Formats: sequence, structure tokens, C-alpha cells
Amino acid sequence: MSGASELCLGDLGERGIQERVLKPRYAGTEGFGDDSALLAKVDSPSELVATTDSCPTPLVNLLGEPDLYHAGWLLATINLSDLAAAGAEPLGLVVNYTLPKTTTVADFERLLDGVDDCCAAHGTHVAGGDIRDGEVVQLTATAIGRCVPGSRLRRSGARVGDRLLLVGSPGHLWAAALLKTGQATLPAPEADEIWRRACRPMAQLKAGQLLATPGLARAAMDVSDGLFATVRTLCEANGLGAAISTEFELDELVAAVAGQVGLLPFDLAQTWGDWGLVVAVREADVGLALKTLREEGVTAQEIGTLTADGKLTLGPETAPWRGIAQERFSASSWHGGEPSTLITDMFKAR
Amino acid sequence: MSGASELCLGDLGERGIQERVLKPRYAGTEGFGDDSALLAKVDSPSELVATTDSCPTPLVNLLGEPDLYHAGWLLATINLSDLAAAGAEPLGLVVNYTLPKTTTVADFERLLDGVDDCCAAHGTHVAGGDIRDGEVVQLTATAIGRCVPGSRLRRSGARVGDRLLLVGSPGHLWAAALLKTGQATLPAPEADEIWRRACRPMAQLKAGQLLATPGLARAAMDVSDGLFATVRTLCEANGLGAAISTEFELDELVAAVAGQVGLLPFDLAQTWGDWGLVVAVREADVGLALKTLREEGVTAQEIGTLTADGKLTLGPETAPWRGIAQERFSASSWHGGEPSTLITDMFKAR
Repeated sequence: MSGASELCLGDLGERGIQERVLKPRYAGTEGFGDDSALLAKVDSPSELVATTDSCPTPLVNLLGEPDLYHAGWLLATINLSDLAAAGAEPLGLVVNYTLPKTTTVADFERLLDGVDDCCAAHGTHVAGGDIRDGEVVQLTATAIGRCVPGSRLRRSGARVGDRLLLVGSPGHLWAAALLKTGQATLPAPEADEIWRRACRPMAQLKAGQLLATPGLARAAMDVSDGLFATVRTLCEANGLGAAISTEFELDELVAAVAGQVGLLPFDLAQTWGDWGLVVAVREADVGLALKTLREEGVTAQEIGTLTADGKLTLGPETAPWRGIAQERFSASSWHGGEPSTLITDMFKAR
Repeated sequence: MSGASELCLGDLGERGIQERVLKPRYAGTEGFGDDSALLAKVDSPSELVATTDSCPTPLVNLLGEPDLYHAGWLLATINLSDLAAAGAEPLGLVVNYTLPKTTTVADFERLLDGVDDCCAAHGTHVAGGDIRDGEVVQLTATAIGRCVPGSRLRRSGARVGDRLLLVGSPGHLWAAALLKTGQATLPAPEADEIWRRACRPMAQLKAGQLLATPGLARAAMDVSDGLFATVRTLCEANGLGAAISTEFELDELVAAVAGQVGLLPFDLAQTWGDWGLVVAVREADVGLALKTLREEGVTAQEIGTLTADGKLTLGPETAPWRGIAQERFSASSWHGGEPSTLITDMFKAR
């Protein structure tokens, strides 16, 4: 490694970081360097929404190389995904990084690349931010978006009989984990494709807007903590239950991995890390909603029905659904760990 | 202390925190519990601005009781102060807290009280947020605001000959430090008043809007890191220098403290922690700007002139100004410390 690539943030100091790293990258952003960043100029009536999330250690970092690019990409995705659940168009991301002085400039650049690339892939940008030194890496962002007035999606608003759609293709992250730990094998190009998808999860911004703006969705939530936690929370917000199908469609490669390790498609579809949306849609609108998404190249499937009984059940036999959900401030709070243990934990409750 | 007051966040878990702490406090906020919070409904053309800052350990915590209320208040102030520098009206604050599981619910409530009270004192509110567990306390917020189109203030935009105004009454925080450490004494009511001001710094939101909207200010920046760092940065952003007066007016009680310890008013006026604004104003507009502020009860004073020579000088003799400035990612980065050492460091360069 060359001397330059081992240069640390503590060698540059705040003013050096500003001049040598941030200015070349962000000087074209209007408001760069000011106390407040310019987010957007809004000319038409809008409902503005905002969301904030910190980034956990990406699972792909535990499974492979510790490239901060992945954390940067994930930080942007998890925040944009919350905008997607509101049916919002993103106006910009505001970032807040705490990093040790010993962070190399090269690693910092990778972090910024990950955030910037993810924002660009979603048609938005980093509008502003703050950076400070600290002993523990902490990556936080706030995403701000706008909704067409009256179209903003919430967790509440669903009714008995509404159908639940799962938007997005689930299971890529945990299929990648099974491949990386040698529990399944695929030819290199296919395994690489799964890995790429696991490293580059996309927020379902287009789907959220396609369903929200014409009123095709009544409620929505993103799959942050697994399908069980998402459906449970959506049901609680509406005082309802849900009868969930166990017949899930997976992408072909994810299905192949599931088959190799003896998991049902439903087992992989229950996992987290793919940033899908669960959306409640009137029964009469299901066909139009799925057609609208399909025409725009968005994968979605009907996964169940909201019920009046307050229970969460699986399959035609309506067995109780005992899913697992990570919960913050509890023993299941996500702190990373050994991949092999994580995989066991993830699938033991199925 | 009763058992209930020693209840910790880890005892409640995420869902318990949501139900027992956050819902009673924020359930009336539209969008509470949704993936994205509702920030505002905007009907007229606006320039939206955003800013984010993490909260350092408040100096008043190092000087007195470790009440998280002060950190909450400061977190809101430092973010709203950046909106003030843009001349923006606040739309809301989005908060992001990392807290150990061992944090007591009582301490957490104090933190929330501090943030909520500070927002209310500035006519705004917490629109949304996120909380997670971690080993180190980290308090981050993002403030979003709106400017009348075309009136947004930046650091750049000033010209040679513009006058610099300091908005706000400087020196309260460090006068409080001198009192708390016994280097100065005042009768209890006066000492209490200084302490109260030190604990409750206010962002200059009204002043920012009063100067920005009618175009009375050409550039602005808040005093985050002391007057020297602020003036230096503002000058750099405009390719200018500044001739600063050493004749500063302090509030009577702050002046009394300065006198007792043999400091000039300028020494205390240079400190940080009072969240004033430095604003560049055309010479011809100085009178109107000061009158406008005074009529609204805002303290401000003219402190110098922007010059073409790129130098920072003090007083009629134009001696070089060698101020100190804390800089992140450097040895001067703020990490708290012993109050006596901090006070020595703060004033040794004067």
C-alpha cells in the first residue's frame, strides 16, 4: 500500500478533509460549505416527509471484505426505502458521519462513493452533511422527500379484506450468505450475480410512487426487519390480522439456493436485507396494481389478505405464524456476529 | 430513587419504548409511527434547506449535574442555529439517538424534554426520528427549513467594505464556567441567571429571517466554534479579510465576570457556546439592520469591516488576530475534559 493511500483523516484535520476530499466531490452542490444545505426549490404544493436511520454493519461486510462502500450504499438505501414506503419522491439525503481519526482517506472515499452511487442510482443526491471524529464509527442519514398532496402512504389506512403485496425480489442477501459460507454453491457468474444484488439493495422508490400517486395503495411499510416484523407492525397499526400465503415466488437463482439447503421459498422470502415494500391494496385494485408495477419492470406478488381476527396465520391451514423479528434494545438487537451463527439464528424459527 | 425511575431502555425493548415513552409524547404528531414522518405541507414556492449536527457533551454537563436535558436542548439549538444562518424558518427537527440499553427511562425522558422544550421555544417541533441501542451515546439531528425564494443566506455573497454584525449576546457560557469554577463570584440571583442562559442557548432564528427576507444581509454564519473561526471562515468564503474592533459590548452580568477575572470584554466575546450569528451587511444598511433587530428585541452590534487584504486584524492598530479555533479531526477537536484545563485553554491565546 502506498503512503498516500494510508493517509488518515487525523492527518488532514477538518479543514484538510474539507479542501482535499469533500470540496472536489461536492463543490458543485449548491449550498456546499454553507451552514445549511440547499435541499430543493419547491414550486408546487407538496407534503414534505423526512426519515432518519443509522447504518448497522452490513452483513456483506461480515461475509466478505470490509469495504466501507457497502456501508455507504446501505446507509442511503435504508433511508430512501422509508421514503419509498411513503410513496415519496426523494429531494435529497443529508448525511452525518462519526469516524475515528485513524480512518484512512481511501476508506473514507469508498464510504462517500457508496453513498453517492446509491443516491445516483435512485435519482437523488447528497445535499449536505456533517462529519466529526469519534472513537466508534457511526453513519447516520436523513432523507427528505415530497409527496403529491393527499397521496402520502402511512402504515395505517388499510381495511379488512385488503390484499398484501410484497414489492421486490426477496432473499438475495441471505442467499448470498448461504453461498459465501459454503452451504450452497452456484457457478461463478450466478453466485456473483447474487452477491452483487446483496451488496446493492435498491429502495423501491418507483413502486412507492406508482402505487401512491393514483391511490392504488392504502398503507405501506418497508421490510426493514424481516417480513414477519413488517406484517405484524402493519397489522397492529390497523387493528387487523393477516392470512399469509406460504407460496412465494423467488428469483430463479435464489430459489436454487433455497432448494440446495432444504429451505422453502417462504423461508428465504421471510428474511430481511432486500428492502422490499409490503403494501395493502383493495382487492379490486390488485390486478391494476400488479400490472402497473410490471409495466415499469418492478417485481411484486400477492402474499395474503388482511383479516378481522387480529391473528397472523400461514397457508390454507391458517397455522399460527411464529416468525422471528430483531428488536432494538433487546437481546435480538442487531450487533453483527459470526456469519455461521447468524444463519442458524435466521432460519431456526422457520 | 424508586424502582420505576431506574427502569432502563433495555428493560422495555424497542416496542416497549415506543408504547410507553414515545407514543404518549408524540402520538399527536401526524405521521408518528410511519416509515417517514410528515414534515410540513408547503403551498407556496420555497427554497428548502437542511442541516445536520451531532451534539457534543455540553460544557454545562462538565460543570454541573449530568442532566441529559441540557444535551437535548443543545442538540436542537445547534441545528436550528444553522437554519438561522440561512435566514430560514424551521419546518421541523428529525432526531436520531444511539443510547446504551442501560440508559434509564427517566434520563431518556429528560433528553426528550430538552429537545422538545427547545423546539417549542423556537416555534418548531420534532417531526420524527429513530432510536437504536449502542455502546456510546450519540445524539444527532437534522433540521429542515424553508426560505423565501431568493433570500437564502450563504457564507459567500459579502463584499469589501461590508460591515460585520454580531447578533446575540456573547460570553454567557464561559462566564458561567468562570463562576462555576469559583474564579468569579456573583450574588446568587445573578449567577443563576448566567447559568440559566448558559444552559438554554437560543438559535437566532428570528434575526436570521429579519435580515434575510428584506435582503438586509449579504452573508451569514453562526458562531459554532468561536468568533475567530467564524470570521476566518466567512472571510475565506469571500476571499476577503476583516478588521475587527476590540470594543465589544457584553451583557452587564457577563461584563462583571470578565472584570473580576481580568479579561477584556473582547476575550469573553470571542468564545463559543452562545450561538450568535455573524452577518455581513452593506455599510448603508447597518443602521436599518440594527434598528430592525432592536425593534424585535434582538441584541446585535457592529464588530468590524470586511477588507480586501485577506488579513484578520484587531483594533485601530490593526494588529494580527491570533484567535484559537477548535478543529475536528485535530488535536483541538472537542472531547470535553477538565473544566479548569478547558478554561485555561480557552483564554490562553487571548
